[in-house]
Amino acid sequence: MQHTLVALVENKPGVLNRVASLFRRRNFNIASLTVGETESPEVSRMTIVVDASKTNTALVERNLLKLVNVIAVQDVTHEPVVSRDLAMIKVRTTRETRAEIMQLVDVFRAKIVDVNAEALIAEVTGPDEKVQSLIDLMRPFGIIEMVRTGRVAMMRGASAYSQNGREIPESNENNQGALDG
Amino acid sequence: MQHTLVALVENKPGVLNRVASLFRRRNFNIASLTVGETESPEVSRMTIVVDASKTNTALVERNLLKLVNVIAVQDVTHEPVVSRDLAMIKVRTTRETRAEIMQLVDVFRAKIVDVNAEALIAEVTGPDEKVQSLIDLMRPFGIIEMVRTGRVAMMRGASAYSQNGREIPESNENNQGALDG
Repeated sequence: MQHTLVALVENKPGVLNRVASLFRRRNFNIASLTVGETESPEVSRMTIVVDASKTNTALVERNLLKLVNVIAVQDVTHEPVVSRDLAMIKVRTTRETRAEIMQLVDVFRAKIVDVNAEALIAEVTGPDEKVQSLIDLMRPFGIIEMVRTGRVAMMRGASAYSQNGREIPESNENNQGALDG
Repeated sequence: MQHTLVALVENKPGVLNRVASLFRRRNFNIASLTVGETESPEVSRMTIVVDASKTNTALVERNLLKLVNVIAVQDVTHEPVVSRDLAMIKVRTTRETRAEIMQLVDVFRAKIVDVNAEALIAEVTGPDEKVQSLIDLMRPFGIIEMVRTGRVAMMRGASAYSQNGREIPESNENNQGALDG
Protein backbone atom coordinates (compact mmCIF):
# COMPACT_ATOMS: atom_id res chain seq x y z
CA MET A 1 0.00 0.00 0.00
CA GLN A 2 1.18 3.50 -0.78
CA HIS A 3 1.48 6.06 1.99
CA THR A 4 1.49 9.81 1.44
CA LEU A 5 3.71 12.04 3.57
CA VAL A 6 3.55 15.82 3.51
CA ALA A 7 6.63 17.70 4.71
CA LEU A 8 7.16 21.42 5.18
CA VAL A 9 10.79 22.37 4.67
CA GLU A 10 12.70 25.62 4.70
CA ASN A 11 13.24 26.94 1.19
CA LYS A 12 17.05 26.80 1.36
CA PRO A 13 19.71 25.28 -0.87
CA GLY A 14 20.67 21.78 0.19
CA VAL A 15 17.29 20.70 1.61
CA LEU A 16 16.47 18.47 -1.33
CA ASN A 17 19.97 17.04 -1.14
CA ARG A 18 19.53 16.18 2.54
CA VAL A 19 16.19 14.51 1.95
CA ALA A 20 17.38 12.58 -1.11
CA SER A 21 20.52 11.43 0.67
CA LEU A 22 18.49 10.24 3.67
CA PHE A 23 16.36 8.11 1.35
CA ARG A 24 19.45 6.76 -0.32
CA ARG A 25 21.30 5.97 2.91
CA ARG A 26 18.34 4.30 4.55
CA ASN A 27 17.25 2.57 1.35
CA PHE A 28 13.74 4.00 1.60
CA ASN A 29 11.67 3.15 -1.44
CA ILE A 30 9.86 6.24 -2.79
CA ALA A 31 7.25 6.07 -5.53
CA SER A 32 7.17 9.81 -6.10
CA LEU A 33 8.43 13.06 -4.67
CA THR A 34 7.22 16.54 -5.47
CA VAL A 35 8.67 19.80 -4.18
CA GLY A 36 6.93 23.10 -4.72
CA GLU A 37 6.22 26.55 -3.40
CA THR A 38 3.75 27.27 -0.61
CA GLU A 39 1.89 30.38 0.52
CA SER A 40 5.10 31.46 2.26
CA PRO A 41 8.25 32.18 0.22
CA GLU A 42 10.44 30.79 3.01
CA VAL A 43 8.75 27.42 3.03
CA SER A 44 8.56 24.65 0.43
CA ARG A 45 6.27 21.67 0.59
CA MET A 46 7.20 18.13 -0.32
CA THR A 47 4.73 15.37 -1.02
CA ILE A 48 6.40 11.99 -0.73
CA VAL A 49 4.71 8.75 -1.74
CA VAL A 50 6.20 5.71 -0.05
CA ASP A 51 5.57 2.03 -0.71
CA ALA A 52 4.59 0.95 2.82
CA SER A 53 5.06 -2.74 2.05
CA LYS A 54 8.79 -2.15 1.51
CA THR A 55 9.45 0.80 3.78
CA ASN A 56 8.51 1.60 7.39
CA THR A 57 6.61 4.85 7.00
CA ALA A 58 6.81 5.83 10.68
CA LEU A 59 10.59 5.52 10.46
CA VAL A 60 10.70 7.73 7.37
CA GLU A 61 8.58 10.30 9.22
CA ARG A 62 10.85 10.31 12.29
CA ASN A 63 14.04 10.45 10.23
CA LEU A 64 12.78 13.28 8.06
CA LEU A 65 11.82 15.33 11.08
CA LYS A 66 15.36 15.02 12.45
CA LEU A 67 16.87 16.66 9.36
CA VAL A 68 18.01 20.26 9.50
CA ASN A 69 15.57 22.56 7.62
CA VAL A 70 12.64 20.14 7.95
CA ILE A 71 9.84 21.93 9.81
CA ALA A 72 7.01 19.41 9.93
CA VAL A 73 6.13 15.98 8.59
CA GLN A 74 2.77 14.26 8.56
CA ASP A 75 1.49 10.96 7.22
CA VAL A 76 -1.84 11.95 5.65
CA THR A 77 -2.67 8.49 4.27
CA HIS A 78 -5.61 7.96 6.60
CA GLU A 79 -6.68 11.60 6.78
CA PRO A 80 -9.40 13.11 4.58
CA VAL A 81 -7.29 14.60 1.78
CA VAL A 82 -7.71 15.81 -1.75
CA SER A 83 -4.87 14.30 -3.75
CA ARG A 84 -4.00 15.27 -7.30
CA ASP A 85 -1.59 14.26 -10.03
CA LEU A 86 -1.14 15.95 -13.41
CA ALA A 87 -0.09 14.11 -16.56
CA MET A 88 0.51 15.18 -20.14
CA ILE A 89 0.18 12.31 -22.59
CA LYS A 90 1.27 12.57 -26.22
CA VAL A 91 -0.77 10.03 -28.19
CA ARG A 92 -0.39 9.00 -31.81
CA THR A 93 -3.50 9.78 -33.86
CA THR A 94 -4.71 8.94 -37.36
CA ARG A 95 -7.75 10.23 -39.19
CA GLU A 96 -9.50 7.04 -38.09
CA THR A 97 -8.64 7.20 -34.38
CA ARG A 98 -8.66 10.92 -33.61
CA ALA A 99 -12.39 11.23 -32.91
CA GLU A 100 -12.34 8.20 -30.61
CA ILE A 101 -9.33 9.50 -28.67
CA MET A 102 -10.87 12.95 -28.29
CA GLN A 103 -14.07 11.39 -26.98
CA LEU A 104 -12.18 9.40 -24.34
CA VAL A 105 -10.25 12.51 -23.32
CA ASP A 106 -13.57 14.29 -22.97
CA VAL A 107 -15.06 11.59 -20.73
CA PHE A 108 -12.13 12.11 -18.33
CA ARG A 109 -12.69 15.87 -18.41
CA ALA A 110 -9.12 16.05 -19.63
CA LYS A 111 -8.01 18.85 -21.96
CA ILE A 112 -6.39 18.68 -25.37
CA VAL A 113 -3.51 21.14 -25.21
CA ASP A 114 -1.81 20.46 -28.55
CA VAL A 115 -2.93 18.76 -31.74
CA ASN A 116 -1.43 18.13 -35.15
CA ALA A 117 -1.86 15.67 -38.01
CA GLU A 118 -0.16 12.74 -36.28
CA ALA A 119 -0.54 13.29 -32.54
CA LEU A 120 -2.22 15.17 -29.75
CA ILE A 121 -1.29 16.04 -26.17
CA ALA A 122 -3.92 15.44 -23.48
CA GLU A 123 -3.60 17.05 -20.06
CA VAL A 124 -5.38 15.20 -17.25
CA THR A 125 -5.56 15.94 -13.53
CA GLY A 126 -7.12 13.95 -10.72
CA PRO A 127 -6.41 11.25 -8.19
CA ASP A 128 -3.70 8.80 -9.31
CA GLU A 129 -6.21 6.12 -10.31
CA LYS A 130 -8.06 8.42 -12.67
CA VAL A 131 -4.84 9.58 -14.32
CA GLN A 132 -3.68 5.97 -14.58
CA SER A 133 -6.99 4.89 -16.17
CA LEU A 134 -6.69 7.43 -18.96
CA ILE A 135 -3.06 6.41 -19.55
CA ASP A 136 -4.14 2.76 -19.81
CA LEU A 137 -6.90 3.69 -22.26
CA MET A 138 -4.46 5.67 -24.43
CA ARG A 139 -1.81 2.96 -24.51
CA PRO A 140 -3.30 0.89 -27.40
CA PHE A 141 -3.23 3.98 -29.66
CA GLY A 142 0.48 4.48 -29.00
CA ILE A 143 1.83 6.78 -26.31
CA ILE A 144 4.71 8.74 -27.83
CA GLU A 145 5.75 10.33 -24.55
CA MET A 146 4.33 11.14 -21.16
CA VAL A 147 5.18 13.26 -18.15
CA ARG A 148 3.62 13.16 -14.67
CA THR A 149 4.09 15.61 -11.82
CA GLY A 150 3.64 13.03 -9.06
CA ARG A 151 1.08 13.33 -6.28
CA VAL A 152 0.32 16.44 -4.23
CA ALA A 153 -2.10 16.23 -1.31
CA MET A 154 -4.02 18.67 0.88
CA MET A 155 -6.23 18.04 3.91
CA ARG A 156 -9.91 18.85 3.50
CA GLY A 157 -11.51 21.38 5.86
CA ALA A 158 -10.65 24.91 6.89
CA SER A 159 -7.50 24.44 8.96
CA ALA A 160 -3.95 24.70 7.73
CA TYR A 161 -1.46 21.88 7.66
CA SER A 162 -1.02 20.74 11.25
CA GLN A 163 2.49 20.68 12.60
CA ASN A 164 2.71 17.11 13.88
CA GLY A 165 -0.61 17.21 15.63
CA ARG A 166 -0.32 20.78 16.81
CA GLU A 167 -2.53 23.02 14.69
CA ILE A 168 -0.82 26.00 13.17
CA PRO A 169 -2.82 29.10 14.18
CA GLU A 170 -4.99 30.17 11.33
CA SER A 171 -4.49 33.92 11.18
CA ASN A 172 -2.05 34.87 8.49
CA GLU A 173 0.58 36.46 10.71
CA ASN A 174 0.73 33.63 13.20
CA ASN A 175 0.74 31.12 10.44
CA GLN A 176 3.85 32.61 8.88
CA GLY A 177 5.52 32.64 12.26
CA ALA A 178 4.76 29.02 12.96
CA LEU A 179 6.09 27.97 9.57
CA ASP A 180 9.30 29.91 10.01
CA GLY A 181 10.02 28.58 13.50
CA MET B 1 14.98 34.59 -16.84
CA GLN B 2 13.93 31.06 -16.00
CA HIS B 3 15.14 28.16 -18.12
CA THR B 4 13.40 24.79 -18.31
CA LEU B 5 15.47 21.62 -18.58
CA VAL B 6 13.97 18.21 -19.24
CA ALA B 7 16.04 15.19 -18.20
CA LEU B 8 15.37 11.52 -18.74
CA VAL B 9 16.90 9.41 -15.98
CA GLU B 10 16.93 5.73 -15.17
CA ASN B 11 14.31 4.89 -12.56
CA LYS B 12 16.82 3.62 -9.99
CA PRO B 13 17.44 4.40 -6.34
CA GLY B 14 20.02 7.11 -5.85
CA VAL B 15 19.34 9.08 -9.03
CA LEU B 16 17.56 11.89 -7.22
CA ASN B 17 20.35 11.92 -4.67
CA ARG B 18 22.99 12.29 -7.40
CA VAL B 19 21.13 15.12 -9.07
CA ALA B 20 20.39 16.95 -5.80
CA SER B 21 23.98 16.60 -4.65
CA LEU B 22 25.28 17.95 -7.98
CA PHE B 23 23.10 21.04 -7.54
CA ARG B 24 24.31 21.45 -3.98
CA ARG B 25 27.98 21.00 -4.80
CA ARG B 26 27.92 23.36 -7.77
CA ASN B 27 25.60 25.84 -6.05
CA PHE B 28 23.12 25.74 -8.90
CA ASN B 29 20.02 27.73 -8.12
CA ILE B 30 16.88 25.75 -8.94
CA ALA B 31 13.39 27.26 -8.84
CA SER B 32 11.60 23.93 -9.09
CA LEU B 33 12.23 20.27 -9.70
CA THR B 34 9.65 17.64 -10.55
CA VAL B 35 10.29 13.92 -10.95
CA GLY B 36 7.66 11.60 -12.30
CA GLU B 37 6.92 8.46 -14.26
CA THR B 38 7.09 8.26 -18.03
CA GLU B 39 5.63 5.89 -20.61
CA SER B 40 8.43 3.45 -19.75
CA PRO B 41 8.69 1.99 -16.22
CA GLU B 42 12.50 2.04 -16.40
CA VAL B 43 12.68 5.76 -17.07
CA SER B 44 11.73 8.78 -14.97
CA ARG B 45 11.50 12.31 -16.22
CA MET B 46 12.71 15.38 -14.39
CA THR B 47 11.68 18.91 -15.20
CA ILE B 48 14.12 21.37 -13.70
CA VAL B 49 13.53 25.12 -13.68
CA VAL B 50 16.73 27.12 -13.33
CA ASP B 51 17.20 30.84 -12.73
CA ALA B 52 19.45 31.63 -15.70
CA SER B 53 20.53 34.97 -14.26
CA LYS B 54 22.23 33.17 -11.35
CA THR B 55 23.16 29.88 -12.93
CA ASN B 56 24.84 28.91 -16.20
CA THR B 57 22.24 26.67 -17.80
CA ALA B 58 24.59 25.13 -20.36
CA LEU B 59 26.88 24.08 -17.51
CA VAL B 60 23.96 22.49 -15.64
CA GLU B 61 23.06 20.60 -18.82
CA ARG B 62 26.61 19.31 -19.35
CA ASN B 63 27.06 18.36 -15.69
CA LEU B 64 23.75 16.53 -15.52
CA LEU B 65 24.57 14.52 -18.62
CA LYS B 66 27.81 13.33 -17.03
CA LEU B 67 25.98 11.76 -14.09
CA VAL B 68 25.48 8.02 -13.95
CA ASN B 69 21.83 7.07 -14.70
CA VAL B 70 21.12 10.29 -16.61
CA ILE B 71 20.08 9.36 -20.16
CA ALA B 72 19.33 12.67 -21.82
CA VAL B 73 19.08 16.36 -20.99
CA GLN B 74 17.62 19.15 -23.06
CA ASP B 75 17.06 22.85 -22.51
CA VAL B 76 13.55 23.38 -23.91
CA THR B 77 13.31 27.07 -23.01
CA HIS B 78 13.33 28.26 -26.61
CA GLU B 79 11.49 25.27 -28.04
CA PRO B 80 7.75 25.17 -28.67
CA VAL B 81 6.54 23.49 -25.48
CA VAL B 82 3.36 23.07 -23.51
CA SER B 83 4.24 23.78 -19.89
CA ARG B 84 1.96 23.12 -16.97
CA ASP B 85 1.87 23.61 -13.21
CA LEU B 86 -0.83 22.42 -10.81
CA ALA B 87 -1.73 24.23 -7.59
CA MET B 88 -4.26 23.59 -4.86
CA ILE B 89 -5.16 26.74 -2.95
CA LYS B 90 -7.14 26.67 0.30
CA VAL B 91 -8.87 30.05 0.63
CA ARG B 92 -10.80 31.43 3.58
CA THR B 93 -14.45 32.14 2.69
CA THR B 94 -17.34 33.90 4.41
CA ARG B 95 -20.97 34.08 3.32
CA GLU B 96 -20.12 37.48 1.83
CA THR B 97 -17.03 36.44 -0.16
CA ARG B 98 -17.84 32.90 -1.29
CA ALA B 99 -19.74 33.84 -4.44
CA GLU B 100 -17.02 36.27 -5.51
CA ILE B 101 -14.28 33.68 -4.97
CA MET B 102 -16.19 31.01 -6.85
CA GLN B 103 -16.68 33.38 -9.75
CA LEU B 104 -12.95 34.13 -9.95
CA VAL B 105 -12.16 30.40 -9.79
CA ASP B 106 -14.60 29.91 -12.65
CA VAL B 107 -12.97 32.58 -14.83
CA PHE B 108 -9.67 30.68 -14.52
CA ARG B 109 -11.41 27.42 -15.44
CA ALA B 110 -10.14 26.16 -12.12
CA LYS B 111 -12.10 23.55 -10.15
CA ILE B 112 -13.44 23.67 -6.63
CA VAL B 113 -12.43 20.34 -5.10
CA ASP B 114 -13.50 20.88 -1.47
CA VAL B 115 -15.83 23.33 0.22
CA ASN B 116 -17.09 23.93 3.77
CA ALA B 117 -18.47 26.80 5.84
CA GLU B 118 -15.15 28.58 6.26
CA ALA B 119 -12.95 27.63 3.32
CA LEU B 120 -12.69 26.06 -0.09
CA ILE B 121 -9.92 24.38 -2.07
CA ALA B 122 -9.44 25.46 -5.69
CA GLU B 123 -7.42 23.34 -8.11
CA VAL B 124 -5.87 25.22 -11.00
CA THR B 125 -3.61 24.03 -13.84
CA GLY B 126 -1.90 26.00 -16.56
CA PRO B 127 1.28 27.84 -17.42
CA ASP B 128 3.05 29.28 -14.34
CA GLU B 129 1.77 32.82 -15.00
CA LYS B 130 -1.85 31.72 -15.02
CA VAL B 131 -1.46 29.76 -11.78
CA GLN B 132 0.36 32.70 -10.23
CA SER B 133 -2.40 35.13 -11.28
CA LEU B 134 -5.08 33.11 -9.52
CA ILE B 135 -2.91 32.86 -6.40
CA ASP B 136 -2.45 36.64 -6.41
CA LEU B 137 -6.19 37.15 -6.79
CA MET B 138 -6.93 34.79 -3.89
CA ARG B 139 -4.39 36.36 -1.53
CA PRO B 140 -6.59 39.24 -0.26
CA PHE B 141 -9.24 36.72 0.87
CA GLY B 142 -6.68 34.83 2.95
CA ILE B 143 -4.77 31.81 1.67
CA ILE B 144 -4.76 29.20 4.44
CA GLU B 145 -2.40 26.87 2.64
CA MET B 146 -1.18 26.11 -0.83
CA VAL B 147 0.68 23.37 -2.67
CA ARG B 148 2.20 23.48 -6.17
CA THR B 149 3.63 20.62 -8.20
CA GLY B 150 6.20 22.73 -10.03
CA ARG B 151 6.47 22.94 -13.79
CA VAL B 152 6.34 20.03 -16.24
CA ALA B 153 6.98 20.62 -19.93
CA MET B 154 6.46 18.74 -23.18
CA MET B 155 7.44 19.62 -26.74
CA ARG B 156 4.61 20.26 -29.15
CA GLY B 157 4.38 18.14 -32.30
CA ALA B 158 4.36 14.43 -32.99
CA SER B 159 7.92 13.41 -32.14
CA ALA B 160 9.14 12.08 -28.82
CA TYR B 161 11.64 13.80 -26.59
CA SER B 162 14.84 14.12 -28.60
CA GLN B 163 17.97 12.73 -27.07
CA ASN B 164 20.26 15.75 -27.24
CA GLY B 165 19.42 16.59 -30.79
CA ARG B 166 19.16 12.99 -31.96
CA GLU B 167 15.51 12.05 -32.42
CA ILE B 168 14.42 8.93 -30.62
CA PRO B 169 12.83 6.60 -33.19
CA GLU B 170 9.09 6.83 -32.93
CA SER B 171 7.97 3.21 -33.04
CA ASN B 172 7.21 1.86 -29.60
CA GLU B 173 9.84 -0.88 -29.56
CA ASN B 174 12.70 1.31 -30.73
CA ASN B 175 11.64 4.05 -28.39
CA GLN B 176 11.97 1.81 -25.36
CA GLY B 177 15.38 0.67 -26.57
CA ALA B 178 16.67 4.17 -27.05
CA LEU B 179 15.53 5.20 -23.58
CA ASP B 180 17.16 2.22 -21.94
CA GLY B 181 20.49 2.65 -23.70
